[in-house]
Parts: sequence; structure tokens; C-alpha cells
Amino acid sequence: MHKPLVGITMGDPSGVGPEVIVGAWTSPAVHAVCRPVVLGHPAVLARAAKLLQNGVEVFALESCASAEPAPSRLPCLAVTAPDADEAPPALLDRRGGQAAYDALVVAARLALDRQIDAIVTAPLNKAALWLAGHHYPGHTELLAELCGVDDFAMMLYLAHGEGIRGPAGLGVVHVTLHMGIADVPRHITRDEVIRKIRLADASLRRLGAERPRVGVVALNPHAGEEGLFGREEIDIIAPAVALCREEGILCTGPLPADSLMVRARDGEFDAVVAMYHDQGHIALKLLGMHRAVNITLGLPIVRTSVAHGTAFDLAWQGKAETSSMVEAIRVASLLSRER
Amino acid sequence: MHKPLVGITMGDPSGVGPEVIVGAWTSPAVHAVCRPVVLGHPAVLARAAKLLQNGVEVFALESCASAEPAPSRLPCLAVTAPDADEAPPALLDRRGGQAAYDALVVAARLALDRQIDAIVTAPLNKAALWLAGHHYPGHTELLAELCGVDDFAMMLYLAHGEGIRGPAGLGVVHVTLHMGIADVPRHITRDEVIRKIRLADASLRRLGAERPRVGVVALNPHAGEEGLFGREEIDIIAPAVALCREEGILCTGPLPADSLMVRARDGEFDAVVAMYHDQGHIALKLLGMHRAVNITLGLPIVRTSVAHGTAFDLAWQGKAETSSMVEAIRVASLLSRER
Repeated sequence: MHKPLVGITMGDPSGVGPEVIVGAWTSPAVHAVCRPVVLGHPAVLARAAKLLQNGVEVFALESCASAEPAPSRLPCLAVTAPDADEAPPALLDRRGGQAAYDALVVAARLALDRQIDAIVTAPLNKAALWLAGHHYPGHTELLAELCGVDDFAMMLYLAHGEGIRGPAGLGVVHVTLHMGIADVPRHITRDEVIRKIRLADASLRRLGAERPRVGVVALNPHAGEEGLFGREEIDIIAPAVALCREEGILCTGPLPADSLMVRARDGEFDAVVAMYHDQGHIALKLLGMHRAVNITLGLPIVRTSVAHGTAFDLAWQGKAETSSMVEAIRVASLLSRER
Repeated sequence: MHKPLVGITMGDPSGVGPEVIVGAWTSPAVHAVCRPVVLGHPAVLARAAKLLQNGVEVFALESCASAEPAPSRLPCLAVTAPDADEAPPALLDRRGGQAAYDALVVAARLALDRQIDAIVTAPLNKAALWLAGHHYPGHTELLAELCGVDDFAMMLYLAHGEGIRGPAGLGVVHVTLHMGIADVPRHITRDEVIRKIRLADASLRRLGAERPRVGVVALNPHAGEEGLFGREEIDIIAPAVALCREEGILCTGPLPADSLMVRARDGEFDAVVAMYHDQGHIALKLLGMHRAVNITLGLPIVRTSVAHGTAFDLAWQGKAETSSMVEAIRVASLLSRER
């Protein structure tokens, strides 16, 4: 089978991005499923390789098509300004934000042109991105704009294994994400719950579940205890679940978050629709902090990312955990073959 | 050392209470730390012993002081109406609610009189309790009333072991508990956060931590991202943490819930102060669904309870997991020795 060509953005050169890419590079799992190339600054990647001393050699690349990656050969397309190499390690810097921006713009263009089959993004730092004059909340919103899409969502995903018993792994889609708890209830609408159930169902099919079993989390503790602690379960979530079941989706809920997450871990569900950030993130970080990945749903291109940030507190010390990058590359490859 | 006398209430006879008591009875861990007696209905317990066929014989007891418990001898003080034995297995019934109520009232009286050193409660069913005419949200509120206390709190607790790396285990106290998410923000006050930090600190000392390390959870995702997703962290939680630190408590926060729970599991904290139900419960149920126990803080008596309900769906089938009952007895014994 033809292996997908996966473009990995360098992320912010001041953060852990370059070292997690170089660290993940020697993993046989990566090269078994794809041909990876890096979009960034060859000298920054070479510096990370020198830090890790893991036998990876960096080659500057002219075009993605000519890449010949191997566990010891890291081809890097130079797509950032030359001063990206001057962004200081482990510090917030405008040049780091600009480099992360540049790499993402090129990655999106290459993916839209079908010159690469998927994008994997190393972390950027939002403050550095803003210092560089690009006022986006993060990668995903910028990517959505580059793709001309405004109906998108993130799925936090853990593959099968290490406590996740479902054969297709476990994905969590959130109805609300980056907002205060006080704002959450008015954003829980029937349409939005339905949209996220459908997205969860569609994504898990691409990840290998034939008929994904989707568990829908209650907003309130004890699923509202029959209306005693809130009526969102009765008025909004239950009707959304009923409608999706009529469409043929195997969804169940609303169920109390604490017991649903245990059942999901134990293989009873392939996907979970959570109502807000912490419901999903507490569970998935406990279940697999280091190997969780984010998948962007709703884009015309395949994109995954590591589930951690730039981690300036441990950047450029050669200590960053690389499992999330390995998983992000593996999942992006899997998704691009399913298209 | 004198072993504490621990009174175990039978709970609702229609639920899993009797069988988890009889199941836990043969555990050497129970008899090593206390002299257990059951407060309930001897015939109901004998029926559970017949179901489990685990060699436990039930003896009707005249008074607690004369109890001679052993792994094969279960002394039971008859404290319920005779018709408790007629409450049908696995069904909601007024007689079950009345029996649970009766056992608790006697248990509280015996504990307040120092005739027993601690109470462990098997689950009651709130609907059955209400059918019997006792309109309490649950055990804890009734106990607080019997003790003449209104400043109490629950701590969800997991002992050291099975993934919990802290030597004193991990306890979670919630600032808010049984209310809808929409009501949570206005209940997060500086005084209440301070009160719960102090309770967490005091309880973990009794559970063996010399200077408990208390992690305080943020209300909002990413701890509000510096005010972008809510100001409760800045205006309420951080000042409460600062004040408690001045008092000498080793508390840290507010920290984002998802990463704090991973750090707590890994032994960096002995206690966590969560802002609402699901933050703590998602984590502790994933970390140890079957062995979690509830500890009631703020009472003049020691009281623990299993962290599960009556589970009518599996009651009287001999399948109920007994670890939570074993842990609840063990923790109650430990706490009563520290008094």
C-alpha cells in the first residue's frame, strides 16, 4: 500500500516541538505507517538532533515529493524566516511565534494542494503567536480560516491499549471547550449536541469502529437527578440523543460523567460527547496523558496534533516525552488512508 | 492496641448493602484493624450469608459491648422493625427505606454515647427513604442533624496503592456538590474555598500525612487562562489559597483540573479541593471505582461510607464488589484510632 506523506510542522522553535519531532523520528511505528517530512527550519531541527544524540541526521529538502525519510534521516523543508533559528530556547519570542505561523500556512497550502496527505502540528505558544501579530486563539482556528471552514471541532483521542479497552480507541468530542464554566450552560443547545454526536460517530468510523457506540455525558452531576439539579438533561440532551438514535447512531445518554468515563475506558463506548472541557480532559489525561492526541474534525484536510503545549519549563533539556508525537503521526497516517 | 468497635449499618435491605457487608466480613484486613458489628436485621444478614455461601454465620446480639466478631462470626444488633426482612430484594420499598433510617438513628446514638468508635454505612436508597416519610437528601444530612451539626462536608478518598502513589492516599473535598452546573459559579466563595482547604488539610493529617500537600483545582478550563475564560481563579480561589498558605497549610493552586489530577495521582498532592462534583468524581472513579470511600468531615463522630449506591440492578445476585466496604471499615478504624 502507498504510504501517506505526512507533513509535520516544527511549531514554536523555543518550545518542545523540535525535540519531540526528532525524538519521535527514530520510532519504527512512525516509518511503518507513513513517509514523514518536517516543515520548519533545518538548523533548528539539527540543533534538536544534536541535543538528543539519537542518530538522526537532518537534511534540507527542496520539495516534499523528493523526501526519502528514514529513522536516521529527517528531511526538512525550509519554510520559516531564517531568524527562526535565533528564537531563544525556552523563552517567549516573536520569532518563535512567526516561525510556527509560517510553518502552518505552508502545511495547509501543501495539504490543500494534495502535495502532502496529512498535517501533524507540534505545539505553538499563543502569546508568541500574538507577539508576532497573528491574533488567533490557536492553530486550529488559523487552520480553519486557511481552509475556509467555520464548522470544525477537536477530538481528544486515545488509541486502544494501556487501559483503553475499545478496539478503535476512545475519542472525546466537547460541546463547549474554551470558555468559563459560567458560560457553559447557555452554550449547551440541542443543535450543538446533535452536531457533536454526528461528528463523534463519523470520526470513529474513520478510526476503525464499524458502528461507533457513542456515550453522551450529562451536564450536571448524577445526570441532574431527574431534574433536581438542572433540566438540561431532560430538555436538551435527551432529545438530541433520541434524534440521533432515530438517524441510526448507536448513542446512549445523558449519563453521569463519572460512571460514563469508567464504562468508556472499559470498552463500552468508542466515543464520548462531553459537555465541557474538564469532563473530557480530566478523564483522558488520567487515562493517557502522554499518548493523547488531538484530531481536528470538519476540515477538508487531515490534521492531528500533540495534546501538550510548548512546555517552556522543560524545553531544550532533552527530557520531553515523545509518545504524543508518535501517536499524532500514527493517527494522521491512519486517517489519511481512510479518506 | 485496643481495637476500635465499628458499627456497620445494614443500609437498605433491598439493595447490595447486606451482601457487601457479608462479603467484606471474611476479609482479614477488616478483623486486623477493628471489631466490627452490624446494626440491622439478623435475618436479612443471614439471608445474604446464605446467598454468598462464604462460611459467615450470623448471630443476634444483645449489646455491642458483648460482640465477639470473627471472619466466620457476624454479630448483628437487631435495630430495625421486623418487617425489614419482608422488603423485596432489588425493588424500591418503604420497608427498606425505614430499615435504613432505623439503623442509622441507632448508629448515631451509639457513636455519640461512645458505645461504638465509628460508623460505616452501607447504601440507602433516597426514594425508599422518602417513601418511608423521611425527607433527607441522604445519610449525611440525617447524620448531621442527629449530631446537631450543620458545618459538614464529604471527602471522597482512595488509600495508597493501585495507582495512587501518595503514602497517605488521596482525598478529594468538593466546594460544591449536589447542584446543577449553572448554580456552581455563585457558590464558589472565598470563605467556602478556605473552609474546604482547611478541612482537607485536617483530614489528611488524621489519615497519616504529616504536612498534607493540598492541590486546589481551578473552576474554569486552563485555570481561566489568566482571566480570559472567567475571573474566579483571580478574584476568589487564588486569594483563598494565599490566605491558607499564610496559615501554614501547604496548598497550591488554582491549577487546571486535568493536569492537577494527574499530578495528584502521581503522589504530588495528598488532597485535592475540587470546585464541583464531576471534577473530583471523574478522577476518583477512574482511579479506583471499587475501592473509593466517602468520609464525612465535621461530625463529632467518625463516619465513613461506601462510595456506591444500592445498585438494585445487581442486588441479591451475589455479584456486588466488596472492596469499597472493606476500605470503608479500614479507614473508619484508622480515623477512630487517631481521635
